Amino acid sequence: MSIAPDDLIARASRVRLACFDVDGTLTDGRLHYDANGAESKAFHVLDGQGLRLLEDNGITVALITARESAALLARARDLRLSHVHTGVKDKAACLRMLCAQLGLGAGETAHMGDDLPDLPALALAGLAVAPANAHAWVAERVHWQTRARGGEGAVRELCDLILEARGLRAAVLGRFGAA
Amino acid sequence: MSIAPDDLIARASRVRLACFDVDGTLTDGRLHYDANGAESKAFHVLDGQGLRLLEDNGITVALITARESAALLARARDLRLSHVHTGVKDKAACLRMLCAQLGLGAGETAHMGDDLPDLPALALAGLAVAPANAHAWVAERVHWQTRARGGEGAVRELCDLILEARGLRAAVLGRFGAA
Amino acid sequence: MSIAPDDLIARASRVRLACFDVDGTLTDGRLHYDANGAESKAFHVLDGQGLRLLEDNGITVALITARESAALLARARDLRLSHVHTGVKDKAACLRMLCAQLGLGAGETAHMGDDLPDLPALALAGLAVAPANAHAWVAERVHWQTRARGGEGAVRELCDLILEARGLRAAVLGRFGAA
Amino acid sequence: MSIAPDDLIARASRVRLACFDVDGTLTDGRLHYDANGAESKAFHVLDGQGLRLLEDNGITVALITARESAALLARARDLRLSHVHTGVKDKAACLRMLCAQLGLGAGETAHMGDDLPDLPALALAGLAVAPANAHAWVAERVHWQTRARGGEGAVRELCDLILEARGLRAAVLGRFGAA
Repeated sequence: MSIAPDDLIARASRVRLACFDVDGTLTDGRLHYDANGAESKAFHVLDGQGLRLLEDNGITVALITARESAALLARARDLRLSHVHTGVKDKAACLRMLCAQLGLGAGETAHMGDDLPDLPALALAGLAVAPANAHAWVAERVHWQTRARGGEGAVRELCDLILEARGLRAAVLGRFGAA
Repeated sequence: MSIAPDDLIARASRVRLACFDVDGTLTDGRLHYDANGAESKAFHVLDGQGLRLLEDNGITVALITARESAALLARARDLRLSHVHTGVKDKAACLRMLCAQLGLGAGETAHMGDDLPDLPALALAGLAVAPANAHAWVAERVHWQTRARGGEGAVRELCDLILEARGLRAAVLGRFGAA
Repeated sequence: MSIAPDDLIARASRVRLACFDVDGTLTDGRLHYDANGAESKAFHVLDGQGLRLLEDNGITVALITARESAALLARARDLRLSHVHTGVKDKAACLRMLCAQLGLGAGETAHMGDDLPDLPALALAGLAVAPANAHAWVAERVHWQTRARGGEGAVRELCDLILEARGLRAAVLGRFGAA
Repeated sequence: MSIAPDDLIARASRVRLACFDVDGTLTDGRLHYDANGAESKAFHVLDGQGLRLLEDNGITVALITARESAALLARARDLRLSHVHTGVKDKAACLRMLCAQLGLGAGETAHMGDDLPDLPALALAGLAVAPANAHAWVAERVHWQTRARGGEGAVRELCDLILEARGLRAAVLGRFGAA
């Protein structure tokens, strides 16, 4: 499924809640296991900046993952994100719960994910996005795929799309002293 | 060696046991050594999902590696895989043993590997597969090479091929709420 | 913004102070979080050699980052760099302070960075550079983009440009026994 | 400098001692620093197999690096390599010392490296090789560049070249049960 640029911008302009899968979307999908079986993962600095820009401009960010991960909780704390949902079996239910909590309709949400467990949330969200490296069966079912792979700035691309669609580009650049 | 698509599907449809090398196949081949000499490695979330889908659909998964690795054992435990064979000097013998144990013929097995120690098992298996980054002398001797490199989703491609060849695609998608 | 090769060489030849952002410039942007929330990052050996060559040839190197990072401090110590500024909210102010301290004009400085917080320093420096993977809004506002991505030798490219522009290539090669 | 295929094979066929730089050659050049300043690095399983094949076929392997690294020592121990030289300021002197110790001429050696400190050893060795990602000033001064980047199988390519040039391909494949 691929949509026209105008429709993409229109959908992005309505987003008030942006939800992100973690492994393969906010990371490159690698799960590092050390000799003690402890797990670590790598996040990208570009993505973190994008998530902060969303929140600072009134768009709520939520991270939703089926896994439990201390690394993720540490990253979310550094980014001062309050909506972090781990161990989630049903991501669509989580998205609905967030909508109810924030008083938003599904059309005011975006979901970004790369694999089959994201399909129900992607079908529900007003804007469904996958990173460049998404599973083929997921890529066929989203409105838009980023050029970057997960963990290499894919999340930032969606953040930028939302900021641009909401007309915030100049304000963001201005905050960093650029015209 | 390259085979016709029809032959590839036919071979994949017969697979009841799927065996995977670890380093370079289930990982990108990197062996991380820390300052204490302890070793870690990175697995890919897409591959883990694929291995679970195989097992949940009645295809047995086995991991077979010449190395010893606590990281691998931890990853296998998280994926609830029971056939994990480390320190294996003769992978073909291991494959034969698994066939005897499960009452399968070699034609009902797949083996995926990237380097010379995989050659005997690849010669034995009904379906011999290598990741995109396999050693040239191995790539010449398999039925199929995945598009992805080891550790970046190559294993998932084989899982999907088997699921599709066995006619399970719609059932898998349905389980994730997609048509 | 793209400038003519002659102008690029002229700007590089005037550089006496070379400033570098860290995450995404001196690294590939990945922030590795372990199971305890501790953070690590990876630097590239080619970049380290380049920074040493600059310092050994009288060009001062400064690392300027908004984050705090014990990993960075350790890397800087190994490279014997004395100008390492962490937790910097205003990179342009830091650049101005360094200029005052070293008795240099802004035209005698280079700044290399990949994201929005680098924009003020990039606007100030005589030579503004971004790695291949820089954010699009930054890439539009620099004099030059390296071919390599951050953390994969991008910093070394700028080091080499400065050394070449200052006519030091033969001397550097001679030090390593090459004509 | 690029040489004819015949000359390359001839040089490779004479190699009795193969020397390798570590960072950027046997690794991808990344130096991972953790929050305590401890350093780790990643080696590739394909390269390790190649180094063992050289040693098992009578070609001595030496690792030569300017850095000190506990990670390297652990990797070398796993590979049962006895010639590991760390903290080396003058790689050409180290190569000459090894030649004297083994009773070999410089024409019977290969050296593979990616940066300026490798230049004297590369000028001395009978076969000078650089990985795909070598510094440009080094790439201009070697007989051959591998297709793979350092840490992604570049070392294995040189191992294979030497094995093939010495007519050992069939024997190696035979050892792994392949014709």
